[in-house]
Amino acid sequence: MFSVNITPRFYETDAFGHINNTVIAGWFEAGRAPIFKIFTPAMDIQQLTLILARIEIDFVAQTHYGHEVTIKTGIERVGNSSFVIIQEAWQNDVLVAKGKAVQVYFDFKTQKSDRIPDLQRTQLEALIQA
Amino acid sequence: MFSVNITPRFYETDAFGHINNTVIAGWFEAGRAPIFKIFTPAMDIQQLTLILARIEIDFVAQTHYGHEVTIKTGIERVGNSSFVIIQEAWQNDVLVAKGKAVQVYFDFKTQKSDRIPDLQRTQLEALIQA
Amino acid sequence: MFSVNITPRFYETDAFGHINNTVIAGWFEAGRAPIFKIFTPAMDIQQLTLILARIEIDFVAQTHYGHEVTIKTGIERVGNSSFVIIQEAWQNDVLVAKGKAVQVYFDFKTQKSDRIPDLQRTQLEALIQA
Amino acid sequence: MFSVNITPRFYETDAFGHINNTVIAGWFEAGRAPIFKIFTPAMDIQQLTLILARIEIDFVAQTHYGHEVTIKTGIERVGNSSFVIIQEAWQNDVLVAKGKAVQVYFDFKTQKSDRIPDLQRTQLEALIQA
Repeated sequence: MFSVNITPRFYETDAFGHINNTVIAGWFEAGRAPIFKIFTPAMDIQQLTLILARIEIDFVAQTHYGHEVTIKTGIERVGNSSFVIIQEAWQNDVLVAKGKAVQVYFDFKTQKSDRIPDLQRTQLEALIQA
Repeated sequence: MFSVNITPRFYETDAFGHINNTVIAGWFEAGRAPIFKIFTPAMDIQQLTLILARIEIDFVAQTHYGHEVTIKTGIERVGNSSFVIIQEAWQNDVLVAKGKAVQVYFDFKTQKSDRIPDLQRTQLEALIQA
Repeated sequence: MFSVNITPRFYETDAFGHINNTVIAGWFEAGRAPIFKIFTPAMDIQQLTLILARIEIDFVAQTHYGHEVTIKTGIERVGNSSFVIIQEAWQNDVLVAKGKAVQVYFDFKTQKSDRIPDLQRTQLEALIQA
Repeated sequence: MFSVNITPRFYETDAFGHINNTVIAGWFEAGRAPIFKIFTPAMDIQQLTLILARIEIDFVAQTHYGHEVTIKTGIERVGNSSFVIIQEAWQNDVLVAKGKAVQVYFDFKTQKSDRIPDLQRTQLEALIQA
């Protein structure tokens, strides 16, 4: 499981006084960077052959400004041309949000989804929780 | 069904050249403003007695800069203390994203969910698609 | 002078209960879209031959959720290879922010600034306030 | 001088393939957090008695995804009720942006600016570069 630390920014709060929920969608994208790196080790993001098909987020507790957040990212399952990422956001030992993201391996030349190559498949499968 | 128009902003694009997916979460929140208005007609948002419990978004097609987007927002069902919003984003007559949001009616004094009052319930139910 | 209307979004507020100041930088970028259009009439933004060299923003009054904002955009002066944009944000007949942006005409092939062509120069100069 | 590290996020890029300029305004706000802490040591941000009066940013070089950015923040001068912050953004030993921010010490009860107390004044003055 990958772990990415986020320092909440003041502009990410909203008038309720907490972190705005839509911001979490961005933090979870940030948490997926180590997954992107599997597909483009040089982080040449414009060469990334993945598209995002779906996200789900459950907001479990309020997220506060002034305290670090840890985004944990793992893999739920790997299909033929797509895979499901599972993510959690933790703050002060409280689970504040959890989510899923479905990524599709995509050939931008043919504009079609394609089979995930074995090299990346192996690395993704190693991230499935026992 | 409510309809809100969005003009994509350049900073909402990403290095893939399209609107970044996480931005759609924000646009769908903007599309829910008429729902917020049911609960706080004066749009005194800090008096809003709703919390967001969950979002889901399916990214159906790429969203482009330079063309208007219409966010359509309706109600799928109304429960005792929560309700499910359904949303679609359309650009140039193409469905680019669809989503759901689960909102909970919340009493901030007791910090507990509460029964949706009849006044708001009636207005929400009127938004359920036939 | 160009005019662009903005509906403030809830996620653009912050814990102070107003629109976050950094959001105004984004709104002013949105207000510059008609200027971008002078340089790429088809709004093919990746063909835009402008780079942003500098911004200044004075925050004059608080900007609120729930009320439309109008961004007014004009030209202060046009130099050889750069020009200065002046902008104002108005809400409920109150000037809430004013700013400047310096854009440079840029040749991405040579990676150097270049003289603003006469076609665009004429259109920019027509936007200078009398 | 304070130093805050930022990991650029993919959604912060734009269609030009680099970090969008308006994002830097948000990063500089994040870089000012240690200044906020001088005024509210518990980071109880809603008790912060500062308002932002002005920002200026010079975009010196392109900022890229995939490489850490360091925001350096110091004080230029301290006036009676306001002070000027100077900031720089560095990536791979390249200065990519520099800026200023004018903050005003503000009494929210009287809705007027007020003299910066000696306790905070001393800490701010210690941050002025020799």
